[in-house]
Amino acid sequence: MSDGPPRFRPFRKDFRWEDVARLAYKDDGEAPFRDVTRQVLFASPDLMGELRYFEVGPGGFSSLERHRHVHAVMILRGAGRCLVGTEIRAVSPYDLVTVPPLTWHQFRAAADAPLGFLCMVDAERDRPELPGPDDLAALCADPAIAAFLRGEGPDG
Amino acid sequence: MSDGPPRFRPFRKDFRWEDVARLAYKDDGEAPFRDVTRQVLFASPDLMGELRYFEVGPGGFSSLERHRHVHAVMILRGAGRCLVGTEIRAVSPYDLVTVPPLTWHQFRAAADAPLGFLCMVDAERDRPELPGPDDLAALCADPAIAAFLRGEGPDG
Repeated sequence: MSDGPPRFRPFRKDFRWEDVARLAYKDDGEAPFRDVTRQVLFASPDLMGELRYFEVGPGGFSSLERHRHVHAVMILRGAGRCLVGTEIRAVSPYDLVTVPPLTWHQFRAAADAPLGFLCMVDAERDRPELPGPDDLAALCADPAIAAFLRGEGPDG
Repeated sequence: MSDGPPRFRPFRKDFRWEDVARLAYKDDGEAPFRDVTRQVLFASPDLMGELRYFEVGPGGFSSLERHRHVHAVMILRGAGRCLVGTEIRAVSPYDLVTVPPLTWHQFRAAADAPLGFLCMVDAERDRPELPGPDDLAALCADPAIAAFLRGEGPDG
């Protein structure tokens, strides 16, 4: 037998899984975000990657951050928008999003729907960097990004 | 700009994605299987893991194999059954399946539905080993496994 997780972990309703804990997204005060949960679906000494499921509640958002490691994302539930670099896109289930190294990004759920997504990362990775005043000013020079970061836009 | 894939790759109907090619599952004659396709969703020099989407057509099956690398699987579409080690389980969307190192496994779609699933693996991994006569005899000593491998069972 393996020391890893049970071989079969059935899906339960509402995007929960058997034998998978729902965790805080980040520690309090670590970064600004709203209404995000995290479930680690696969993480093991046998794997170089990890697969996590994040869910942003209606009107919520992940932290605006960047880092050297890549995010490989598949949307799984609901609706929302992503900022990646200087691009903003509406996303819906099964869409793929790649966050390249050192690229500012944020995920925002629609006002009336959650946004759930898978995110594959390297198990060994750097810590996220948060934007300083100069970074924010540079991002907000684009009115569309400024509106996105204020939570304004087509779907909240 | 990144040299990687486009940052946004929308989902198209029928479990196809923009800018993702649908590939042969394995080379002809490499291993016995029936009606399986492969799409590599994320694979990059920047990532230690890869995320692939496999789809087994109704009545089809992946090859029976084992290897040192781990398979981290999330069912995404349809219905079917998996053999992992000596366990056989019915699976449906969002169920999680872990294939530990050196564990015989096979995925079979239902007779009347495809079975589509995500599979995360290490980018660097060993080649699968196929069962020899002794391995098959040992597996088929269990009548339930013998029936599974013949394609008999609750859902084909």
